[in-house]
Amino acid sequence: MKTQPLTPAEIEHALTHLSGWAWNCDALVKTLEFGDFREAMGFMLRAGFEADALDHHPEWTNVYNKVSIRLATHDAGNKVTAKDVELAGRMEKLRASLTGRA
Amino acid sequence: MKTQPLTPAEIEHALTHLSGWAWNCDALVKTLEFGDFREAMGFMLRAGFEADALDHHPEWTNVYNKVSIRLATHDAGNKVTAKDVELAGRMEKLRASLTGRA
Repeated sequence: MKTQPLTPAEIEHALTHLSGWAWNCDALVKTLEFGDFREAMGFMLRAGFEADALDHHPEWTNVYNKVSIRLATHDAGNKVTAKDVELAGRMEKLRASLTGRA
Repeated sequence: MKTQPLTPAEIEHALTHLSGWAWNCDALVKTLEFGDFREAMGFMLRAGFEADALDHHPEWTNVYNKVSIRLATHDAGNKVTAKDVELAGRMEKLRASLTGRA
């Protein structure tokens, strides 16, 4: 299945369901903040399983309790596709379940 | 214990024992390459335990099979200290054990 870039309208629509995520420089981005390093690593481990299951991988940076995520699709010219929206949604669900914050 | 920045000579000496690490913009840096995403995540999980045990945390970015690491000490004006050398050494040992490459 060839993955097509989403249109700006499709991305804007997807963002209405992704609290705190933004569309920036052709990627879906968010910086998550956790209680400490262990919580941040716990998130990355579990989100890593989701990414691997989707065979779609983030660019992400961790510094202590923060995880900055950038999602775009290499095979679609580094544009945002449905795969990025799917992974962002899974990460968001995971973040909510780990932090207890909606 | 107040952590003091190392002198340039001390950093250069430490680097002779840290294969592939460099001193760049006041930090110890290296980009590690693994076989795939799972191996990269496996490294990050285990290195995360080392970092937590030392109570000293990296700035690191993962993209698929690569992990780019930047080590400096916040409490020492973001300069390189013995803590960074210690964490780099543990990461290096871990990388070697995981990849089977010296």
